[in-house]
Amino acid sequence: MSNFEAEPRMASWAWPTGATKVLAILGDPVEYSLSPVIHNSGFRRLGLDCVYVALRVPNGEIGKAVEALRFFGVLGFSVTMPHKESIIPYLDEVTDRAKKLQSVNFVYRQDDRFIGDSTDGQALVEALRDEFDLSVHGRSVAVLGSGGAGRAISLALADNGAKEVYVISRNLSTASAAAELAGSVGYVGVNEDIDRVSVIVNATPIGMTGTNLAGLTPIRADQLKEGQFVYDIVYHPHVTPLVEVARSRGIQAASGVSMLVRLSTIAFEKWTGVEAPLEEIRSAVRAETLRRG
Amino acid sequence: MSNFEAEPRMASWAWPTGATKVLAILGDPVEYSLSPVIHNSGFRRLGLDCVYVALRVPNGEIGKAVEALRFFGVLGFSVTMPHKESIIPYLDEVTDRAKKLQSVNFVYRQDDRFIGDSTDGQALVEALRDEFDLSVHGRSVAVLGSGGAGRAISLALADNGAKEVYVISRNLSTASAAAELAGSVGYVGVNEDIDRVSVIVNATPIGMTGTNLAGLTPIRADQLKEGQFVYDIVYHPHVTPLVEVARSRGIQAASGVSMLVRLSTIAFEKWTGVEAPLEEIRSAVRAETLRRG
Repeated sequence: MSNFEAEPRMASWAWPTGATKVLAILGDPVEYSLSPVIHNSGFRRLGLDCVYVALRVPNGEIGKAVEALRFFGVLGFSVTMPHKESIIPYLDEVTDRAKKLQSVNFVYRQDDRFIGDSTDGQALVEALRDEFDLSVHGRSVAVLGSGGAGRAISLALADNGAKEVYVISRNLSTASAAAELAGSVGYVGVNEDIDRVSVIVNATPIGMTGTNLAGLTPIRADQLKEGQFVYDIVYHPHVTPLVEVARSRGIQAASGVSMLVRLSTIAFEKWTGVEAPLEEIRSAVRAETLRRG
Repeated sequence: MSNFEAEPRMASWAWPTGATKVLAILGDPVEYSLSPVIHNSGFRRLGLDCVYVALRVPNGEIGKAVEALRFFGVLGFSVTMPHKESIIPYLDEVTDRAKKLQSVNFVYRQDDRFIGDSTDGQALVEALRDEFDLSVHGRSVAVLGSGGAGRAISLALADNGAKEVYVISRNLSTASAAAELAGSVGYVGVNEDIDRVSVIVNATPIGMTGTNLAGLTPIRADQLKEGQFVYDIVYHPHVTPLVEVARSRGIQAASGVSMLVRLSTIAFEKWTGVEAPLEEIRSAVRAETLRRG
């Protein structure tokens, strides 16, 4: 079920028109976000007359932005730093998982209500399937990091039937909170627990280009063993230090681009009511990440 | 002087990106506005990485919309019904002519200040030059109608050196106010004054498709005489009843598309610092108005 008619005119010079539906990402900064490239390539591929733009919303202004987006009549929007938590009071409703995580990364409209959801964890679970044809059901998983991403992933792993979720972090209090989100299967882990799991997820920014953690790995190569799967939510650089180290030991490993793609397609499908064109979106992301280096 | 680098990627599938600069038209309704088609065709032609979208802002919400557009960091925006007057208190400054007219049709940013201007009158003066190679300097002109457009046109005609400006309207009090805007060359006119002028401008909606005035002309054919010029600000239909009647008497006449184009190029150049690509914009407008019939 689609919310639109296909609109062949959008490929013309004179697009968007007054009738084009607007969607947006709200955050600060937003100019480097990959989301516009992802969503616009998807809209274009399907001939949906929608345009997705980046709107800078400084800290403290999210309430006013949401109010404006209401009367603009947008179909929905994405939310990024620094508003993922502070937006909640301005929405009409948040999903159970968003409430548990106190975090929203996208908002959709149902009639005139704005509903916030948190889909980082679900995106990770879907990315594991895409990359390794792997279901987390019955698996033991180590989650490195207990920030927003670590929390979301711990919750989603438990919700998807993981047997054990070890949250490994230098900060024991946030690790304990993240483990608690995984309920009866959640544990605060230590480095040695990596030996007991079949899936390791890096949910820290360690290894990310442009930070003081660039070039580093969250664990040592000799902590990994054959048959494990390594997923790194970092996607810049394209091949992260952790992925490189794991692959050099013959271990299947993937960086975070596939999670980013799934994060987007979940929102895309909720907004449009149409299946997202995965191949088009993947190639747009690949082209853009390669361009950025 | 341009505010941008040319951005060849904007012709790709995955455009706009996070770095694309956003501009907008604010009004209600906005979905039928020709402005997005005009501005986006111009941006595209010049390779400027800007996108112009239509944002619905209901009556009473313009202050909130302006506040949001401030922190979004937009380059500028257009203003249409019902906000042309009510927006004024929310801007940092308005030009002299906008203040006299108590009307704003576009806003540009200077540093962090939003400045409102009213350019309907200037656009009409430029359209007369485009259509008839005609300068209003030293000319006697009849303006039919004393609403917002009639007022703006009367002021601009006087500012551009017209010898006499006759405002002809059934409403003597608004006619008198419009004539006053033309200062010492402004007069409240009657139908007989049409005989004394070389230029007649229809600033009423008479003849506009989709209204109860469709098919009508604001004056009779036998009121016109050879050597006069007739400009009709109505542009829907493409050839208005007044233009048809005038041409049937061998009188040079044009409908409002050229004024609409000039209205847009004035804003385009203020926003971008770049000369607007007139031919591209004209052909985009022509294609769109023909498409709409």
